[in-house]
Amino acid sequence: MQYPQRLEKLFSLLQKLPGVGRRSSQRYAFDMLLHWPERTLQELAAALNDIKKVLLCADCGCLADESHCLFCQDPMRRRDALCVVGSPREVYTLESTREFGGLYHVLPTLLSPLDGRGEEKLNLPKLIARIQKEQVTELILALDSSLEGDATCLFIKEKLQHLPVKISRLAFGIPVGSALEFVDGGTLARALSARGSF
Amino acid sequence: MQYPQRLEKLFSLLQKLPGVGRRSSQRYAFDMLLHWPERTLQELAAALNDIKKVLLCADCGCLADESHCLFCQDPMRRRDALCVVGSPREVYTLESTREFGGLYHVLPTLLSPLDGRGEEKLNLPKLIARIQKEQVTELILALDSSLEGDATCLFIKEKLQHLPVKISRLAFGIPVGSALEFVDGGTLARALSARGSF
Repeated sequence: MQYPQRLEKLFSLLQKLPGVGRRSSQRYAFDMLLHWPERTLQELAAALNDIKKVLLCADCGCLADESHCLFCQDPMRRRDALCVVGSPREVYTLESTREFGGLYHVLPTLLSPLDGRGEEKLNLPKLIARIQKEQVTELILALDSSLEGDATCLFIKEKLQHLPVKISRLAFGIPVGSALEFVDGGTLARALSARGSF
Repeated sequence: MQYPQRLEKLFSLLQKLPGVGRRSSQRYAFDMLLHWPERTLQELAAALNDIKKVLLCADCGCLADESHCLFCQDPMRRRDALCVVGSPREVYTLESTREFGGLYHVLPTLLSPLDGRGEEKLNLPKLIARIQKEQVTELILALDSSLEGDATCLFIKEKLQHLPVKISRLAFGIPVGSALEFVDGGTLARALSARGSF
């Protein structure tokens, strides 16, 4: 038995969300159809039409309401330390630690040549120009621990080796609060070799 | 650090979906912001604005593209058997079994006096009028096995006892394909007392 056409349309659009399959899309759609007031639906529709007005900072690529983000505009932040991330979203996770007071640089993508994302997509000249302009002395690579993340880190390190900037990457080790029993062998090996006095 | 206002707005609206908390709402919103083409966003917005145009059948309360649903319009279906459900969504689950060839009746709600949903909300006069008009001989109650579902079944049975209609409820028992180990005691007790030859 067919669902009404309008509902099928909504199912298929909701299934474009990450991790949402047919069942979840139906759950969401029926909830909206049967329980949401019309006004809330209109508000969500308006929010969706509005969302692309969120801008990316012209300097660093972070989310911004205006042409430059709040980080780049903040006179209290160190300008000689730059943290390189793979998505504007990760900036907020890093900020929540309150451990970093420098600026950010969002890469347009990570390296993944097989998916057609080669080195030209990284736009390293822009990063290099920023390092030189702001006289950055420390570059922290906060990228995924994945094939793409590892490749991107190595590539950046190689390309920037002629610059007078210290390049580091986030430490590997066991997650805080975890039981050793649940830590995988690769992580444990890295944690062992990087062991430290405490 | 604050997210841009437009994004916060989208987070809070998405959190109205069932089972979606702050983290999922952020996951959805960032995916839409960073990866969805503008056209798809507009399509979803339009689908949301459109969804309330899905109608409820004037006779049975099922979803309908026109004033009457496909079930009520179908001349091949038995009109003397009526299946009572608690939401238009459940009709589709029942249809997928291909075991029922009659018509449906969607209750506006289940009984739940403490939440202000008393007997007048059930709109039983409409159900009674349908039973009399279509000369229904069998009424199948396909309601949740919950406090509200049980109360509603008992209430309907009592209110309709003067009508010449056979009233039944979905059987209780162990789910097909389940290991006894994982079946709760209440279910097992019902399955035992309703045991049958096979």
